[in-house]
Amino acid sequence: MSLHAPVPPSSGVGDVDARCRWLAQRFDAVRGRSAALAAPISAEDAMVQSMEDASPSKWHLAHTTWFFERFVLADGGPYTPFDPAWDYLFNSYYQSAGPMHARPQRGVLSRPTLAQVSDYRDAIETRMRARLQGGDLDTRLLDIVELGLQHEQQHQELLLTDIKHAFFSNPLHPAYRDDLPHAGGSTAALSWIARQESIFKVGHAAWPGDAGFAYDNESPRHRVLVPAHALASRPVSNAEFLAFIEDGGYRTAGAWLSAGWDTVRARGWTRPLYWNEACEAEFTLGGWRALDPEAPVCHLSYYEADAFARWAGARLPTEFEWEQAAVSLPVDGNFVDSGRLHPSAPANASTGLQQMFGDVWEWTSSAYTAYPGYRPWPGTLGEYNGKFMDAQWVLRGGSCATSADHARASYRNFFPSDARWQFAGLRLAKDSA
Amino acid sequence: MSLHAPVPPSSGVGDVDARCRWLAQRFDAVRGRSAALAAPISAEDAMVQSMEDASPSKWHLAHTTWFFERFVLADGGPYTPFDPAWDYLFNSYYQSAGPMHARPQRGVLSRPTLAQVSDYRDAIETRMRARLQGGDLDTRLLDIVELGLQHEQQHQELLLTDIKHAFFSNPLHPAYRDDLPHAGGSTAALSWIARQESIFKVGHAAWPGDAGFAYDNESPRHRVLVPAHALASRPVSNAEFLAFIEDGGYRTAGAWLSAGWDTVRARGWTRPLYWNEACEAEFTLGGWRALDPEAPVCHLSYYEADAFARWAGARLPTEFEWEQAAVSLPVDGNFVDSGRLHPSAPANASTGLQQMFGDVWEWTSSAYTAYPGYRPWPGTLGEYNGKFMDAQWVLRGGSCATSADHARASYRNFFPSDARWQFAGLRLAKDSA
Amino acid sequence: MSLHAPVPPSSGVGDVDARCRWLAQRFDAVRGRSAALAAPISAEDAMVQSMEDASPSKWHLAHTTWFFERFVLADGGPYTPFDPAWDYLFNSYYQSAGPMHARPQRGVLSRPTLAQVSDYRDAIETRMRARLQGGDLDTRLLDIVELGLQHEQQHQELLLTDIKHAFFSNPLHPAYRDDLPHAGGSTAALSWIARQESIFKVGHAAWPGDAGFAYDNESPRHRVLVPAHALASRPVSNAEFLAFIEDGGYRTAGAWLSAGWDTVRARGWTRPLYWNEACEAEFTLGGWRALDPEAPVCHLSYYEADAFARWAGARLPTEFEWEQAAVSLPVDGNFVDSGRLHPSAPANASTGLQQMFGDVWEWTSSAYTAYPGYRPWPGTLGEYNGKFMDAQWVLRGGSCATSADHARASYRNFFPSDARWQFAGLRLAKDSA
Amino acid sequence: MSLHAPVPPSSGVGDVDARCRWLAQRFDAVRGRSAALAAPISAEDAMVQSMEDASPSKWHLAHTTWFFERFVLADGGPYTPFDPAWDYLFNSYYQSAGPMHARPQRGVLSRPTLAQVSDYRDAIETRMRARLQGGDLDTRLLDIVELGLQHEQQHQELLLTDIKHAFFSNPLHPAYRDDLPHAGGSTAALSWIARQESIFKVGHAAWPGDAGFAYDNESPRHRVLVPAHALASRPVSNAEFLAFIEDGGYRTAGAWLSAGWDTVRARGWTRPLYWNEACEAEFTLGGWRALDPEAPVCHLSYYEADAFARWAGARLPTEFEWEQAAVSLPVDGNFVDSGRLHPSAPANASTGLQQMFGDVWEWTSSAYTAYPGYRPWPGTLGEYNGKFMDAQWVLRGGSCATSADHARASYRNFFPSDARWQFAGLRLAKDSA
Repeated sequence: MSLHAPVPPSSGVGDVDARCRWLAQRFDAVRGRSAALAAPISAEDAMVQSMEDASPSKWHLAHTTWFFERFVLADGGPYTPFDPAWDYLFNSYYQSAGPMHARPQRGVLSRPTLAQVSDYRDAIETRMRARLQGGDLDTRLLDIVELGLQHEQQHQELLLTDIKHAFFSNPLHPAYRDDLPHAGGSTAALSWIARQESIFKVGHAAWPGDAGFAYDNESPRHRVLVPAHALASRPVSNAEFLAFIEDGGYRTAGAWLSAGWDTVRARGWTRPLYWNEACEAEFTLGGWRALDPEAPVCHLSYYEADAFARWAGARLPTEFEWEQAAVSLPVDGNFVDSGRLHPSAPANASTGLQQMFGDVWEWTSSAYTAYPGYRPWPGTLGEYNGKFMDAQWVLRGGSCATSADHARASYRNFFPSDARWQFAGLRLAKDSA
Repeated sequence: MSLHAPVPPSSGVGDVDARCRWLAQRFDAVRGRSAALAAPISAEDAMVQSMEDASPSKWHLAHTTWFFERFVLADGGPYTPFDPAWDYLFNSYYQSAGPMHARPQRGVLSRPTLAQVSDYRDAIETRMRARLQGGDLDTRLLDIVELGLQHEQQHQELLLTDIKHAFFSNPLHPAYRDDLPHAGGSTAALSWIARQESIFKVGHAAWPGDAGFAYDNESPRHRVLVPAHALASRPVSNAEFLAFIEDGGYRTAGAWLSAGWDTVRARGWTRPLYWNEACEAEFTLGGWRALDPEAPVCHLSYYEADAFARWAGARLPTEFEWEQAAVSLPVDGNFVDSGRLHPSAPANASTGLQQMFGDVWEWTSSAYTAYPGYRPWPGTLGEYNGKFMDAQWVLRGGSCATSADHARASYRNFFPSDARWQFAGLRLAKDSA
Repeated sequence: MSLHAPVPPSSGVGDVDARCRWLAQRFDAVRGRSAALAAPISAEDAMVQSMEDASPSKWHLAHTTWFFERFVLADGGPYTPFDPAWDYLFNSYYQSAGPMHARPQRGVLSRPTLAQVSDYRDAIETRMRARLQGGDLDTRLLDIVELGLQHEQQHQELLLTDIKHAFFSNPLHPAYRDDLPHAGGSTAALSWIARQESIFKVGHAAWPGDAGFAYDNESPRHRVLVPAHALASRPVSNAEFLAFIEDGGYRTAGAWLSAGWDTVRARGWTRPLYWNEACEAEFTLGGWRALDPEAPVCHLSYYEADAFARWAGARLPTEFEWEQAAVSLPVDGNFVDSGRLHPSAPANASTGLQQMFGDVWEWTSSAYTAYPGYRPWPGTLGEYNGKFMDAQWVLRGGSCATSADHARASYRNFFPSDARWQFAGLRLAKDSA
Repeated sequence: MSLHAPVPPSSGVGDVDARCRWLAQRFDAVRGRSAALAAPISAEDAMVQSMEDASPSKWHLAHTTWFFERFVLADGGPYTPFDPAWDYLFNSYYQSAGPMHARPQRGVLSRPTLAQVSDYRDAIETRMRARLQGGDLDTRLLDIVELGLQHEQQHQELLLTDIKHAFFSNPLHPAYRDDLPHAGGSTAALSWIARQESIFKVGHAAWPGDAGFAYDNESPRHRVLVPAHALASRPVSNAEFLAFIEDGGYRTAGAWLSAGWDTVRARGWTRPLYWNEACEAEFTLGGWRALDPEAPVCHLSYYEADAFARWAGARLPTEFEWEQAAVSLPVDGNFVDSGRLHPSAPANASTGLQQMFGDVWEWTSSAYTAYPGYRPWPGTLGEYNGKFMDAQWVLRGGSCATSADHARASYRNFFPSDARWQFAGLRLAKDSA
């Protein structure tokens, strides 16, 4: 797992050949990880769409491949697609790339088969490798290759959260893998890290450019005034969240946003998504497990995270407070690379800042909106991020299902207030007196 | 295909051993047909639930097996189920048999796998054969075996209509089989068979009893007064239905029931379910085919059948008019046994009564209600038919997806007014002057 | 209240002038009753649409007036409408009379005001009286006048059931009238009136014709075979229905139709619509009242009536069984004319056939379908009844909200299975051994 | 209309008697305006709830009165409510004040009548005046009186926007008033007012306190870094928005947020809410009027404002950019006080900053979230603002339906992305190079 990964050969500088080689290597690594993550998933499992927000594994595997085919291979001159009918099937949401199959209907796609999708992956990989080795990809296309790999890493995380939901939706509750390691660890008492008001430069220099990859929504890097505040040393634990439940947290309106309380009642929420009714076990990618009181609480909606924070006399941090604390830390933690696929208490309990990266995405109190001076990428890829800046909240830090080399301090994940199926928890913050 | 199949050894008479042997033979035949019908369906195809009304093929295969396990094998003494968790999964709607998996969620069941379901079928078949050969099944249980085979035949038809809908829902429109025979044939001009008012005994003697199998909803056999009327010699053809479309049938409220017209507008109906927009081709289990103007029109809702009849200056027949005409005919026609799996014009055009059996289910103007003196079967199996006597219409005659030895003149199929995915068409009737 | 009302001067025979005079007199009586029923309803009350199935009182008052304007006054030559914009507002469902205001939006019509609608009623009444006195209405238009009065009587009943629902929807639960008389009465033990199989002529001669008014759906009069059966001497009482509740009737699936049980659970039904939670009081047009155990149970859906009958070891009668028993009785009972506006136990308990007319509409087991030879009225008025022959059940006998001279033995009311806001109860029937 | 209204006697300082006198005077003025605004609305008009988001006028009049009764009069010692049953009816959303009538059902409340609500207003006003004169209201209760008046002013605006929607929902399209003055005026070419990056103190000192009234969501006043940017001199005009429509703005996905585009298609939006199909006239509180090309465009959702800005190569301002520009301006403009009740072009065209206050609320790109250090008011009134900080956007500046003395530079109005029935338009902003 990458600690302080060196900035890769960038689009803005130096040797195109070196970048090609680096991208070819990375292409193999990322594509290989998708294959590895999909390995425990049968052709049947790969069909399940257990809710509209989730997609079948097979669709993730095909869509990430389509991305390379549509935006790299088919770019420019004449191109013979692998199958012309698939463009419609595996376009996710790019209106300017043509019409698309309805998202809630992804589960009906028994064809193409998983084997055909696997062949598709092989064929496109072959073509991509040829292009990467052929040296005829210009800087713009190399950028798209790099983006396509980041894109695939996002879908790797979704593949895991979606298959977890799929298996939970099956009354048999099968495990994704039976051999997942259990991590012990323990947490220290929560402490507060205080910081004075300051002007801080948040965000990431626009990519492509000199500074390595970032999504368009992370730029431009810009100055913000961060008020005095204190940040909790670690995420909220299962034991702490249990106290909220035992205090009637889900039974009284007091701590909840108005729409949150409506949601609690309409859907009958009484605990985090994957907990059993007794609040003693939780469903994991390794099946049912006893709830570890020391591990970070997970699979909360924004509504639950926000209500817990209010109940606890605290609040969620802003994304700027979070980034300011994270920017100087190594991007290190319980990522997908650890192979645990579940949040866990840290190996070494400490009262210093812990678990900022990995384990659970941390809901922030920042709505997902544009940074001042934000410009979407040009063309169709401008639909990647900007058009979703509406009624969502920013999450930070990555999770146990995120690739380590996909995470960074400026990374802005986003989900609407009622989304629970991501590996999402929270860290408390407080205003300074 | 069975012409005048001899009444099998009945529950009410004679030799239990003979009945056992006959049932064992029939068990193999019916179960074998399910396997044959499922053969072209991959594990992935068998997962698809393209709408709430339809079920995945795998579910049909498992549920029909569960029926034997639950109602025959597990009846009485101690029994070790194949898998105790599956009782919940494969109960369809028997409230008195315990809680059940939600119908709209059948598509999430990647587990058990198709292979496991296949093993399940094998295992239960082995146990069933042992019981049938062992001679320890009493008359009541032999009755349930017989019912279970009829039940499986119903699901064979649903398996075909559901997979057709599943494949049509996939933008790739795969064919169920590529080798389906095309049937030529031609229709004669429609003629009218008139009949005077009469008292007619409709229905079937209650089963179990002396008279062979029938569902509880077909009994008791009872006298009804059938008014003078005339019945069309054959079903409405594609060409005739096309004239309705070309006359603006789907564009004006005139001929429609009120809720039918609302449905036409809300769902944007402009033609039968599987026709292409140009009304020149239709999607079949063999893929897209040119529309045969002579073949019976198919995949109509009650609303469409009723509106067509009104537009044509006629009406739908009552189920009694239909049965009276059918009762003396051989149960002969284009059933699933023909292997065509699509309605077709008859081999020999005639102005006599044609195609009463097979090809398309014929919507009648009879609401699906209880016959006078109707008694549901005792116990859990009493939920089989009676509790659906609400807001549905009776269809008669069987279709190209029905087994010949499952059809009979007294058979009452039923669907709600907007159901289009069955092989359903219509035959006209007229009041006599 | 009318006992054996003499057949009025009919469209088919005799003196047009006499018919005109009779209709003019009846016009005043019926229109006057609408005004009297609307008297306790303020302009604000007359606005409420408490559910999609119900209409505001004001709308009923205007629509019944529009009926005369549109189908009588505006028929034929040039006509200056009272307000041309109102045609759109007060057309209910006549597609062939032009577009119409959406039914669920009737509650937004603060304009025209109730005062304007009252002026509208006055103005159209003046014009109608002039035409009726002028002697220029031909037989066809006189028929429509007669129909319009029957139509208005139907809406008088709906006005009462809709305002009852409106007041119940208001947490203050105001009474429609504070001065409604309470009727005592008592019921005898239920007895069974048995009848042998017979051929019976049901229905009513087509109107217009010699035999007085009937809706098109009651004709043609035709022969049916009614099987041997027994009919309960009186409707089911509140006390009897309470026993069903106390036996867990609403808590177990056993007695319910499948869709009925789904409805019970989805809507949380535990008792008839207007009963309080303790099942000790019911909401009436006179406000809350103690439940009279002897009075007929009321405000049941078909689902509840059917489930009760099954639980009681009986069934609902067919509409033919009902009509055969009713046809020789005087059309006498607790109609709207009694001024009670609530079902009550009969003044004289008896084990003979009681309360066939008035008190509560009686759900039958007959689906609402066309009689053999049924022809809708010609033209736009053909939309009156026929297009609703889908997924509804027939109710017979009239209720405490029906006009006595609107009821008759052949009258077929119809509502879908889940409708509860009508004055609907049930009478049991049984198959004969 | 108030220019630089002097800060009223505050809760935090000086003479309680003076404050009482000032509040008594203001109480009469604000309550009087409600009555004046309600004058053209009949008892029937006051019943209409044309959509869930809107409330009947009568409800607004009662709820604002309930606020004083519940939070001032009933506070503390024993109190005899005007009608104990009304507490349930007229609680809007205060969970901690007890259960409440369902919002979408407000339209069924024909009782209490408008006359009774008017009596209620009179009675509570009498009691309130007695308390204000009696001198027994402590500072805390005087604060609630002040809040109650601000609260009533908010509902005055909603009363106007809701009755406008109600009248538009009626096919007769009645005018709220027939005598509304038309304002001429003309706009200058749009110019850009640029500003360098700066640190600016946004918001309002917490109330109650020394600095006059503000909602809790406007505080604490705090430092933010506002980046360099340019702000348009005036709101977008009808003519400018028409160019967007004519350029296919509603027909292509390009400029829209993802959920915005879904909304456009699902609801068939092709123009602002109250425009006619030809885009030549708009429905106003004075009825239909020719569209004034110079007047600010109005009745846009956030989706439309945001899409227009993107199409125009600009963006929406942040609420901080807006406030920084507004804070030094007089709170002057086309408010409800002008009596026009519709946005209009300014009397004097200018290229300086115009129409920041009044005319139309201006959508900002700021999500409605808490200011750092935000504390809701204590107790039940803490539910006033904070619990709605979810999936809404801030609007600034007030509209032609806002009271001048209710507006201020720090005022944060908020609505979700698809709300169109408010007087909401937009002002463009740009990033500085």
